[in-house]
Amino acid sequence: MEVRDNPADSGWVGYRPQIKVLDCTIRDGGLMNNSRFEDGIVSAVYRACVEAGVDYMEIGYRNSRRIFSPDQYGAWRYSHEDDIRRIVGDNPTALKLAVMADAEKSDYRNDIPPKSESVVDLVRVACYIHQIPLALDMVKDAHDKGYETTVNLMAASVIQERDLDEALGLVANSEALGIYLVDSFGHFYSEKIRYLIIKYMQYMRSTGKVVGMHAHNNLDLAFANTIEAIVLGANMADATMAGLGRGAGNCPMELLIGFLHNPKYKLRPILDCVENHIEPMRKDLKWGFDLPYLITGLLNRHPRLAMKFNEAPERGDILEFYDKTLAGE
Amino acid sequence: MEVRDNPADSGWVGYRPQIKVLDCTIRDGGLMNNSRFEDGIVSAVYRACVEAGVDYMEIGYRNSRRIFSPDQYGAWRYSHEDDIRRIVGDNPTALKLAVMADAEKSDYRNDIPPKSESVVDLVRVACYIHQIPLALDMVKDAHDKGYETTVNLMAASVIQERDLDEALGLVANSEALGIYLVDSFGHFYSEKIRYLIIKYMQYMRSTGKVVGMHAHNNLDLAFANTIEAIVLGANMADATMAGLGRGAGNCPMELLIGFLHNPKYKLRPILDCVENHIEPMRKDLKWGFDLPYLITGLLNRHPRLAMKFNEAPERGDILEFYDKTLAGE
Repeated sequence: MEVRDNPADSGWVGYRPQIKVLDCTIRDGGLMNNSRFEDGIVSAVYRACVEAGVDYMEIGYRNSRRIFSPDQYGAWRYSHEDDIRRIVGDNPTALKLAVMADAEKSDYRNDIPPKSESVVDLVRVACYIHQIPLALDMVKDAHDKGYETTVNLMAASVIQERDLDEALGLVANSEALGIYLVDSFGHFYSEKIRYLIIKYMQYMRSTGKVVGMHAHNNLDLAFANTIEAIVLGANMADATMAGLGRGAGNCPMELLIGFLHNPKYKLRPILDCVENHIEPMRKDLKWGFDLPYLITGLLNRHPRLAMKFNEAPERGDILEFYDKTLAGE
Repeated sequence: MEVRDNPADSGWVGYRPQIKVLDCTIRDGGLMNNSRFEDGIVSAVYRACVEAGVDYMEIGYRNSRRIFSPDQYGAWRYSHEDDIRRIVGDNPTALKLAVMADAEKSDYRNDIPPKSESVVDLVRVACYIHQIPLALDMVKDAHDKGYETTVNLMAASVIQERDLDEALGLVANSEALGIYLVDSFGHFYSEKIRYLIIKYMQYMRSTGKVVGMHAHNNLDLAFANTIEAIVLGANMADATMAGLGRGAGNCPMELLIGFLHNPKYKLRPILDCVENHIEPMRKDLKWGFDLPYLITGLLNRHPRLAMKFNEAPERGDILEFYDKTLAGE
């Protein structure tokens, strides 16, 4: 089988073996239910990832109990080692495990033990542009403890270009293995993805670091933009089962695995997980493309406005929501 | 405001005034309900198109009563002049009206009157590759009667390249104003769209004919592929309210209008139509992205298999459907 090494190669019968897929169903989906997933769901996602040949599973946040009260939040907001091991044992599989630590919301020095005591492989540090110095301290801490690390620089659609350039330069000189283009507001069309992925890659080129893509589906482009990033050379791609994730959700794993031609990936276990474990949760959780998310995505606003609209017991007036959002309320 | 004339220009603050949008909600959606729409729905779509500045509305098929029995099919399978005028009067608006005539399913010589007797502006001729000679006769007939015409060459993902080249050469020499890339099976990724749109445009370049895009959403790429085609220079784009259309549906009008920066287009009337007229039909009509459509799209099969699965009173076993479709059943 032909193996494509040149990211710009427009063929698609072959594949690029460097591409890694990360499942963040439980982590990003946790923004829809305060990370209160039953163990059965977390196990189902874990099994599906193992069987499908997914490379990483991000099992939750590693955030602070001081900031997120255990009265309100479930286990996957903290992802303690004991909780993780209850699902994965010693994880005797090829699947690597990840947790996400949020800048200013994680007691990372205390809550992240040395790698030798942990079943986690990768610590992803999420931050906004003004938190880059803190994020890089978190990266160094986790790296020195023995973990792989990435920087997930959020809300890229509201970062000024001069600040972005500075941040990319700092990340290029850090211990991080990679950086993600994160479209938190689901605002980007493919043209912007193209421009930014090329920029991110230019900064990382001489360092050997990878560029990843984390998309949201407000404009129904999460999968399309993830493909676009991959075609341009991004080698980490985030996806979730049935697209489960904040608001309009993420790139659906079933579409991404269908797209990738690497024979190590299997679609069948993903279809099973989506149909039999994730879709049944729709009766309680309203994620996925919907007009309020289209509106916030189009207007480059945080999805919280749309989530509030969609969480109301009765559907509000969409035109009123549009007018108010346009007016900046 | 900057106006973009160069299709390859990667900017997006400006716009390209040549782009025309065609609504085919009632026509393609009619494949989900045998074209049995109530007048109220057709009127709502018409009003929304007029208010939103949409360029064309395809109000239905102009097909034969001999082939489609009026016992089974609604008015919009035939779109008689009287039916259309019941909705639009003499259509005293800037919106142009279209009907679709299927090769071998339309009594086009009898059922399409001279343009002087019709409120229709555009006749779109739909055909498979082996029907190109008939389609071009239909184009000539409608053109000579005074209509604008296009060729909608269906199921492009199963046409052999040599046949496609021959067909494009024939269309280039015909009376048609344009040709559509039609992804009937929802099978194409952006890389294929890019390759094919460039090919279609190369054949049409010296003729002044336009290239259009008609996408289906099996792989959740209908909107993304429509953008891709537009960025490459396609100047006709099909969309439907809420994506209503056969199986996984079409490119959603609300996304396309949000994307186009031409100030003549207005999003608000589209949001109103989608939320208050189209979405309520979901209780009876199951269109839109779903795993069975993903499976047929991925495997480049006609969506009828998936439609049958989704029309069953109780949801079947998706893994069984996957296995059977893989096996070619």
